[in-house]
Order: sequence, then C-alpha cells, then structure tokens
Amino acid sequence: MTLILGIDPGSRITGYGVVRDTGRGCEYVASGCIRTGGGALHERLQIVFRGVREVIQAHGPVTMGIEQVFMARNADSALKLGQARGAAIVAAAEEGLEIAEYTATQVKQAIAGTGGADKQQVQLMVMHLLKLTQKPQIDASDALAIALCHAHTRSSLIPHGLAGAKRRGGRLRL
Amino acid sequence: MTLILGIDPGSRITGYGVVRDTGRGCEYVASGCIRTGGGALHERLQIVFRGVREVIQAHGPVTMGIEQVFMARNADSALKLGQARGAAIVAAAEEGLEIAEYTATQVKQAIAGTGGADKQQVQLMVMHLLKLTQKPQIDASDALAIALCHAHTRSSLIPHGLAGAKRRGGRLRL
Repeated sequence: MTLILGIDPGSRITGYGVVRDTGRGCEYVASGCIRTGGGALHERLQIVFRGVREVIQAHGPVTMGIEQVFMARNADSALKLGQARGAAIVAAAEEGLEIAEYTATQVKQAIAGTGGADKQQVQLMVMHLLKLTQKPQIDASDALAIALCHAHTRSSLIPHGLAGAKRRGGRLRL
Repeated sequence: MTLILGIDPGSRITGYGVVRDTGRGCEYVASGCIRTGGGALHERLQIVFRGVREVIQAHGPVTMGIEQVFMARNADSALKLGQARGAAIVAAAEEGLEIAEYTATQVKQAIAGTGGADKQQVQLMVMHLLKLTQKPQIDASDALAIALCHAHTRSSLIPHGLAGAKRRGGRLRL
C-alpha cells in the first residue's frame, strides 16, 4: 500500500491527485485544484508551495509524479510555468517525497494504452480506473493520470511478486 | 538601517548579494553564488531554496529585489530559469521578506545612470559604490546590483527626511 501524489502545475491552476496503490490496482484518495488567484507573483508561488505541502501533510503520499515539459508555447509562458513548477517541486522535496518526471506521452501510454490518446480519452480512463462516478475538473484529472502513471511505472520496476501488480501489455490493469 | 537582499537566479548558478542601507548610502555585507551541481531536478531546486533561506537566516535581510525576466533565449531555458526563480522566490516569501521585481534596464539605470550600461560597467560601479577591492564573481555582482537598485528605489519612495537618503539625478549617491 503506497500513497502516490500526481501534480499538474500551472501558473494559474495546479491540479493534484492522490491515489493508493494497493498492489492490485489503484484506489482514489483525493484530488483538486490549487488556484493561485490574482496576487503578486511571490504570493501566487507561495499558494502553490503551501497548497502542495498541505495536500502532502493531509494525505501522506511518499512519492510524487510530475509531468515533464518539453515544449512550452513560448518563452513567457514557459517562465511562468517553470516558476509554479519550481514552487511545487520544492514543496514536495522539502516534505521528503521521491519525485519522478514523466512525459505527456508516457502518461497517455500508461493510462490509455497509446501515446496518441486525447485529453478526453485520458479523463474517461482515469474515471474508469478509479471508479469515479463524477468527472473531475480537467487539471485534477490530469494530476490523477500522472499519479496513476507513476504507480504503474513504479510497480513495473519492482520485481514481480514484491509489488503484487499485474499488467497486460504495458497498460494499467482494469 | 535596512538589510537588503538581491538575488540573480539561474538554473546552474544563483547569485546573491546583501547590502546594508544606512540611509546615507549602502555598505557591503555579503555576496556569493549558490551552485546547483549535477543532481536531479528536485535536488537542484532544493539547493536554491535552502541556499536562499540560509543567506536570509545568516544575514537577516527584510526585503529582496529580484530581476524581472522579459525575454528568455528560448522556451527551454525560460522553463529552467523559471523553476530556479520559483524556488528562490518561495524561499524568500516563506521567510517573510518583501519582494520587488526590477527590469534589467531599471537596475542599470540605478547603478550606472543609464539603462544602456554593459555588464562590465555595472560590475565596476558595484565595486565603486560598495568600496570593494576585489571584483566579485559576475552572478554575485549582478545580485549586488539588484540589491543596490532595490535600496535606491525603496529610499526614493520613502518621503525625504525619513529615509535620510539623498540622490542626484536618479543615480545612486557615491
């Protein structure tokens, strides 16, 4: 039983998702959005930092997955995203979490079985895998997808038998 | 007497400088570089976060100036700079410092009297203003320039007489 955090940072909204890896699959624990509002830059970054820290302290995950950014729209949005990402990563590192990065393609591959899946397919698979009856907000859903991808990748790195996880063809077991 | 921190964040080296604003000018307190080394991303960001926090705890500045970035070279370098910047800003905010941003032009204007000054002119003026006999490393010098710009801007915002600062033509008093 491992609690796993997924974070989808953004300059305005940072999504988070926490899942419990039981060794036989993942269960939903919590998800939501940290909204930075319209304050000064340092206030917005502090909201991300404290928000991530509060989620960690409330639910006790020991490891975090975060999406790796290869291509931002432009230098200005990359700088803003980077600042929020830095605040979120530092919060998790200071709380002692292991941190792993995944590309968008790795996340889609793990969740939907194909790196070419669209956002809606990923969202539906997140709902299906975690037996959610309501559609989570898109940033929360993306964060849950990253948490599931991290759970999947971690268990596939642990020798079979120890993790108790079974996979079919690189796809999360339903 | 106000202790002022200047920070010049970078993905590999973050320069810092601390000056004491006596009301009659600024005195050198400390400067240096926080080098992030070659670890994982979260380890490098933690080095920036902890390094800035240690400088604050060692010297006790109450306010921080940081350079505002308008144009990064490209999206990838902007993301990396943003992450380091986010870690540095969150460290200062968590330590309760006031934070102000200045453009490169504002820093050059305050230090050298012209927004078109080059890096070497700024470095020589920093040495002159702070009566340094040795040339500081360039990232430390840039951080001291930001601290001096912040001291200058703050004192010019405080009603004359209260701050005790005198200026000539928008340039720091030598």
